[in-house]
Amino acid sequence: MYVFSDSVKDLRSSAIRDLMSLATHPDMISFAGGMPDNELFPLEDVGEIFNSLSRREQQAALQYAPTTGYPPLLQELEKWLRKKGLPVDTNRLIVTTGSLQGINIFAKLFVNPNDVVLTENPSFIGALSAFNSYLGKIHGIPMDEEGMNIEKLKEALSLNPKLLYVMPTFHNPAGTSYSLERRKQLLAVMNETSVPILEDDAYGDLAFNAEDTALRVPLKALSEKESQICYSGSFSKIFGPGIRLGWMLLSDDFYRKAELCKQSFDACSPTFTQVLAYRFLASGKLDRYVAWVRVIYKQRADYMVDAIMRYFPEEAKFVRPQGGFYLWVKLPDGMDEQELLKATIADGAVFVVGSTFDPSGTSNGYIRLSFSNTPEEKIERGIRIIGDRMKQMMKKSL
Amino acid sequence: MYVFSDSVKDLRSSAIRDLMSLATHPDMISFAGGMPDNELFPLEDVGEIFNSLSRREQQAALQYAPTTGYPPLLQELEKWLRKKGLPVDTNRLIVTTGSLQGINIFAKLFVNPNDVVLTENPSFIGALSAFNSYLGKIHGIPMDEEGMNIEKLKEALSLNPKLLYVMPTFHNPAGTSYSLERRKQLLAVMNETSVPILEDDAYGDLAFNAEDTALRVPLKALSEKESQICYSGSFSKIFGPGIRLGWMLLSDDFYRKAELCKQSFDACSPTFTQVLAYRFLASGKLDRYVAWVRVIYKQRADYMVDAIMRYFPEEAKFVRPQGGFYLWVKLPDGMDEQELLKATIADGAVFVVGSTFDPSGTSNGYIRLSFSNTPEEKIERGIRIIGDRMKQMMKKSL
Repeated sequence: MYVFSDSVKDLRSSAIRDLMSLATHPDMISFAGGMPDNELFPLEDVGEIFNSLSRREQQAALQYAPTTGYPPLLQELEKWLRKKGLPVDTNRLIVTTGSLQGINIFAKLFVNPNDVVLTENPSFIGALSAFNSYLGKIHGIPMDEEGMNIEKLKEALSLNPKLLYVMPTFHNPAGTSYSLERRKQLLAVMNETSVPILEDDAYGDLAFNAEDTALRVPLKALSEKESQICYSGSFSKIFGPGIRLGWMLLSDDFYRKAELCKQSFDACSPTFTQVLAYRFLASGKLDRYVAWVRVIYKQRADYMVDAIMRYFPEEAKFVRPQGGFYLWVKLPDGMDEQELLKATIADGAVFVVGSTFDPSGTSNGYIRLSFSNTPEEKIERGIRIIGDRMKQMMKKSL
Repeated sequence: MYVFSDSVKDLRSSAIRDLMSLATHPDMISFAGGMPDNELFPLEDVGEIFNSLSRREQQAALQYAPTTGYPPLLQELEKWLRKKGLPVDTNRLIVTTGSLQGINIFAKLFVNPNDVVLTENPSFIGALSAFNSYLGKIHGIPMDEEGMNIEKLKEALSLNPKLLYVMPTFHNPAGTSYSLERRKQLLAVMNETSVPILEDDAYGDLAFNAEDTALRVPLKALSEKESQICYSGSFSKIFGPGIRLGWMLLSDDFYRKAELCKQSFDACSPTFTQVLAYRFLASGKLDRYVAWVRVIYKQRADYMVDAIMRYFPEEAKFVRPQGGFYLWVKLPDGMDEQELLKATIADGAVFVVGSTFDPSGTSNGYIRLSFSNTPEEKIERGIRIIGDRMKQMMKKSL
């Protein structure tokens, strides 16, 4: 009876949503959610910050902020991004309501219905849904353990793509990081084009080996034509998703349109949490917190890898992650992910099947295991459940 | 060199943005901003709430919330909206990142490029920019002091509109509220159609006379076909804009699409401020705060009306507001608003010209004066500056 617009009429709820209600059930061991662990949040820091806010800061926290961000936060973020080698002085910064809003804005800037959008395959589900919501045609480019396949990228340029979305560092869901060589190859190809690039660096600070910077140098810091690249980041993994703050660093012409989009999206991001994030960053608490939490994530990753070596059949393959939240496991040939998931749910363990991250939803024989949100004692039990079921399924198919 | 999408290529910065940087200058008396006064925020309440949060609530505040909202907040909001006579049980509720996000989502649900959107003329600038961002063709329907012109509404239905956006209560910028009779007339006309209605009730709680409920009964509480209406509201005026929270109450079929849109916009609204808003509402602090703050806004409105009677030429006409933030003044015939604004800025007072709120940006001989954000002593001085300049301009034109 009511007529929906073209852009929403075919929108369907994703399978991941139903999975999530299952994944938060207390009896379930969940490797499904891409969120930090509640037990690891910097609650004391937040309390100290809140109770030291001046009256003026408390007032600012409840008032509108400029659309592009609370100025003290923008200043601190600039300093912090400069330390990563990012070209802060020749670009402009926008605070976004989570980095997903930044992806959505970038999609709105460039995607008309039926336009081709290039992504990695697999890719972040939030980005895929943003591109879908503008009726973009997503073309996924396969990855190996060093990053995107450059030959396939070259071929895909003939499709006249309107943007390229990549997550070169501690990829969600693939868990890997582009090698320095692959980063350079990608830039060499893309610099010849005027296809805008969105570089999503939501996990870049969660390196397990802080010295190994080659695995996480941002494309935007590396490129000779960096104006082509919008660099986006997030406080979700280094403070908390509930503050809903991310950022975009982008050239002036992209910035002006992005600001206008954001104006009609939500006028400004929450000032309340911008004031907290400003103080978290400016006080050095953020750097201390990140240094602490990434050691814990490394331990969990190591623990999960150990458990996999013990309990999974050796036909299941994976690359040891160097940072981030995820382990991306190739199942033994011919094993059905959906069937495996159904079986492990019955035993009390849940994960996300690989097809969720495929731009066309195709089954690919992979599963994503998140280690960020599960304490060590549960990791072993959960991995054992999954491994046992894999072995059973292999026996059956003999 | 980079090709922007159709929906953003013609986006232009609105004049109001430049005005705002001027309006926040400390030497300027501003009647421009549509925001609460920093001095009136419930800072003590927020401090009490924050420091009484349980560890579990603190953790929840930093974690993702469900896309449709933090469940305890949804429950309290439902109770609170039920008390306003709203059909909570036959509808569903979504927490949005400010009510502007709700407007943007509703626009996305129904507006394809070149579709006609009906609004009042004048209308809320944020809504106009949201409809423009979907390339809607906005058709404004004139208002008088009792609400929208019903004959013009009937005529406009022949344009095959995809939605109707209205703010029946304490209108921004018109300052007036629809009479009960006009509300019923509008519903009688619209109920014959299947045009979805977005009812924006951002100011409904700020009635100067709490007993006079006829002037603020929601259309969605009054309609026999309420499923046609999405009711939206906001914490911005009854708590603080910086928490960036609003809500939409809508029928199940609208809800399912709206949830999917929100999923790709920002995944969820800030949990941190949702936890605070939940406690503000559940503790009864919100009701006490609103009862206090609306008396202050009434005093400011009365004070502004008195000053206008003293300082404006009697050819300037207005309707005494019954609630909200705004006074909408018709200038003496032939007076140019832009010229008046230029002159009063030179003297230290600023307001917003009426064309800003006209869907086609046409000059209409009105100005909007906001009394929410200016203490009484400054109201008199500012109104005198504007009145003196009006009188000067009238003399000159003789």
